[in-house]
Amino acid sequence: MPKTSSRHLLLTALSGCLFLPLAQAAAPTPAQLQTAAQASFREWAEVLALPNDSVVPADIQRNADWFEQAFKRRGLTTRQLPNDGKTMLFAELPNAPAGTPTVLFYMHLDGQAVKASEWQQESPWKPTLKQRNGAGQWEALPIDRLFGQTVDPEWRLFARSSADDKAPIMMLLAALDALKASGNAPAFHLKVLLDSEEEKSSPSLAAVIAQNQALLKADRLVVLDGPMHPSNAPTLVFGNRGVARATLKVYGPKQDSHSGHYGNYAANPAQTLARLLASMKDDDGRVTIAGYYEPVKLDDDSRRIMAAVPDDEAALRKRLGIAAAEKVGGNYQEAMQYPSLNVRGMQAAEIGSRARTVVPESATAELDLRTVPETPPESLYALLAKHIEGQGFHLVNGVPTDDDRARYPKLASFESAKVSASSTAVRTDLKSPIATWLRSAFTKTYGKEPVQIRMMGGTVPTGSMVDALKVPFVIVPLVNADNNQHSANENMRLGNYLEGVRGLAGILAEPIASTK
Amino acid sequence: MPKTSSRHLLLTALSGCLFLPLAQAAAPTPAQLQTAAQASFREWAEVLALPNDSVVPADIQRNADWFEQAFKRRGLTTRQLPNDGKTMLFAELPNAPAGTPTVLFYMHLDGQAVKASEWQQESPWKPTLKQRNGAGQWEALPIDRLFGQTVDPEWRLFARSSADDKAPIMMLLAALDALKASGNAPAFHLKVLLDSEEEKSSPSLAAVIAQNQALLKADRLVVLDGPMHPSNAPTLVFGNRGVARATLKVYGPKQDSHSGHYGNYAANPAQTLARLLASMKDDDGRVTIAGYYEPVKLDDDSRRIMAAVPDDEAALRKRLGIAAAEKVGGNYQEAMQYPSLNVRGMQAAEIGSRARTVVPESATAELDLRTVPETPPESLYALLAKHIEGQGFHLVNGVPTDDDRARYPKLASFESAKVSASSTAVRTDLKSPIATWLRSAFTKTYGKEPVQIRMMGGTVPTGSMVDALKVPFVIVPLVNADNNQHSANENMRLGNYLEGVRGLAGILAEPIASTK
Repeated sequence: MPKTSSRHLLLTALSGCLFLPLAQAAAPTPAQLQTAAQASFREWAEVLALPNDSVVPADIQRNADWFEQAFKRRGLTTRQLPNDGKTMLFAELPNAPAGTPTVLFYMHLDGQAVKASEWQQESPWKPTLKQRNGAGQWEALPIDRLFGQTVDPEWRLFARSSADDKAPIMMLLAALDALKASGNAPAFHLKVLLDSEEEKSSPSLAAVIAQNQALLKADRLVVLDGPMHPSNAPTLVFGNRGVARATLKVYGPKQDSHSGHYGNYAANPAQTLARLLASMKDDDGRVTIAGYYEPVKLDDDSRRIMAAVPDDEAALRKRLGIAAAEKVGGNYQEAMQYPSLNVRGMQAAEIGSRARTVVPESATAELDLRTVPETPPESLYALLAKHIEGQGFHLVNGVPTDDDRARYPKLASFESAKVSASSTAVRTDLKSPIATWLRSAFTKTYGKEPVQIRMMGGTVPTGSMVDALKVPFVIVPLVNADNNQHSANENMRLGNYLEGVRGLAGILAEPIASTK
Repeated sequence: MPKTSSRHLLLTALSGCLFLPLAQAAAPTPAQLQTAAQASFREWAEVLALPNDSVVPADIQRNADWFEQAFKRRGLTTRQLPNDGKTMLFAELPNAPAGTPTVLFYMHLDGQAVKASEWQQESPWKPTLKQRNGAGQWEALPIDRLFGQTVDPEWRLFARSSADDKAPIMMLLAALDALKASGNAPAFHLKVLLDSEEEKSSPSLAAVIAQNQALLKADRLVVLDGPMHPSNAPTLVFGNRGVARATLKVYGPKQDSHSGHYGNYAANPAQTLARLLASMKDDDGRVTIAGYYEPVKLDDDSRRIMAAVPDDEAALRKRLGIAAAEKVGGNYQEAMQYPSLNVRGMQAAEIGSRARTVVPESATAELDLRTVPETPPESLYALLAKHIEGQGFHLVNGVPTDDDRARYPKLASFESAKVSASSTAVRTDLKSPIATWLRSAFTKTYGKEPVQIRMMGGTVPTGSMVDALKVPFVIVPLVNADNNQHSANENMRLGNYLEGVRGLAGILAEPIASTK
């Protein structure tokens, strides 16, 4: 792992000329990093024993208390942020020199609910060290093996939140320890926010931020959450798509009608819906609604960065079980830069043993639109509604009246859901100062450019943070992609933990040239 | 009601020259018809008090016993046909002269299950006489009013099976009484079969016929069941569409997949199914699959008869709640002459509160194809499968294998159900001897041509009778269309009863010129 250390030092030295050094920080040595990481394993195992589903405020409180002490031990000041029993935790490294830029690190201490019976260990709350045996199966090792001088990077620690998201918190604490051991302080004013309801879509995060605006004020936001690129290469994520939902319903006869007496007479709404959906996309999966993709402009630099992502698309297609991908983008990364139009559910009458021979009274398609910053939900909703009307439909609000039925041969309703900030698409410019800063930190640390995800396809609630704090952000995922996040047998690969501590120490040591 | 009697006699006299009179029958007088119909009301009320859901064999036995005595009182010989407890009844007028053509009348003594709480009377098994009051609501009359010298034709008798199908049996018995009062015998060898499981789709009818082939042998089959044309004009039905069922399933990714990570990459099977369905029909509801309608040829005579059916299509569209009909045929009747392609159910993942943001793993359309004799199920299935393949799909049996998934971008399965005789389309030529015979009987009786339904859109199990007996058939519906058949508050309009007795007496008196 310490292969690139000499080059690292050289790069650090060189880059010192390119940036305005606001603090005299330098990254710790490999030995310091190793020692700090190993030392943190005991705390990690301790905090993983604490259940953390935010439906139980007492559990959340125990986690907040535990992390509060852990930050205090490192000299940070802390404050518990009350949140209807589900306490969030704020921590801050005091005594930053005046004018030092502030970076807020966001993580979360809560975890997904567990079904203990699905776990292949005594309890999700009993952290269990495992290694793969010759047959490829996970077998337990004595937990004491975690607490020695070294560990095998291929070992994994299994527990709820071992990866998502207690590992990044522990890695940050270890990185602080390593930095301290090297005799340095972070190159910026460090703040930390531990959310307590991330796994419940952070319903109160905006309110808590609003109540603590001054406390949480920062120049930059770094989100430590989510999985790294499946190649396990160091990863920076600059944005995520948003998600908007709408329900499209096509109306047929007033009630389910006898398909013998009325088949060939009363138009079938499932068939009509099919025609309508078919009019929205071509056979390659590209949306054909006028203007749907039009605001999205990809420049050559962006395309180069996307092409550089080491996606194994053949493996991806195999895992999905599809012979060919849609042709929205030239590759997987490019496809994620465009808004989607997905039929997430569809139904007319019943299928299987409950199917009856009827012309259904209606047919419904539940849609989700993954948005990008250039295509906000409202604009896509408007394009969709216009397209539906252009296909000859009269749009009604709710159930059509008898008068609607008498007047319009094609009736549909289109109900779009309001989109909250947490479901909004956000993206940081890859040439912005925060992007340059983190790319530099990782390039120095790892000796190569990180994988740069311009926009991840899924939606994470970054939008609510960005909306509330008005601050540039980057997501820095640190855990292995195959961590079984949200499922049984969640685990963290120790190699990723060690590399993550190194990456975070690199970030902590990286000077910030400008907060613009 | 007896307005046309003189013309009737004239027509009878004239037509006597055109047909070979095999028996010296003449229709009863209006007074004889009235007396016989009125006299039958007591028996009708009596038998309507007997529950007749064929899930209770003892109830079916009571009905079979009751009808056996009723036929015996009229001099018919009878035989109970054992059927695993659900006895069917055979009756026959003995002593027909040798060489007399035989006509088998098919009816059924069983009824649909009841939910007594939904009935607006003491019990579905307590026949209740009602008239509409000024406010348009049904109010009860003393049952004795039914048993006087005359009744108001607008009165209705409410009870389970009051219309479907005990009324036609009672009308036939009354017609026999009237004919006897006129001093005549039927113009043919009369046989009667009362099914005991029609409301359960006659699962054993074919077997019972097979066990009693000689007994049931006939030259013609008259089915007394179903509602008349909604105009209440005398109606003959010469055929019914069949019904075939198939399940079309389009496969997406191996399992429901995250719509954020894979939307714009993994093709959505609901969308793919929509494109496939859209390729099968045009915007006017016409099937565009090559050859689907091609075998159907309608001549000018058929079109004239269809155009003569007094359908109130504006009222039909209003009732269905549709502004415009599909354009498969130029009118409702013509539309029923073509096979249909109906999506009777459709589903992908979930809708409503259970909807999740996924690319569904599959999308299913349940299809029903209403067939006509020229387009048997197998030929339509083959056209459909060929069309699906023509749209670029690889058809699999059951779930696709990993190899299928790796090889074929578009995967679907198409499973067609085997079609039993009871679901087969049947039609009698409108120029055939049986059609000519019944048209003549009704034209003489009512003084005008009956409404002739070349093919009803729905499917009734005529096919199993026709298949088992190899005999030409016509369906003669006699009950009011608004009888609430199969539902609560089933009822029979007395005017229809009286007219039905007259029509049946006309049929019984109508000579059969030829059995070819």
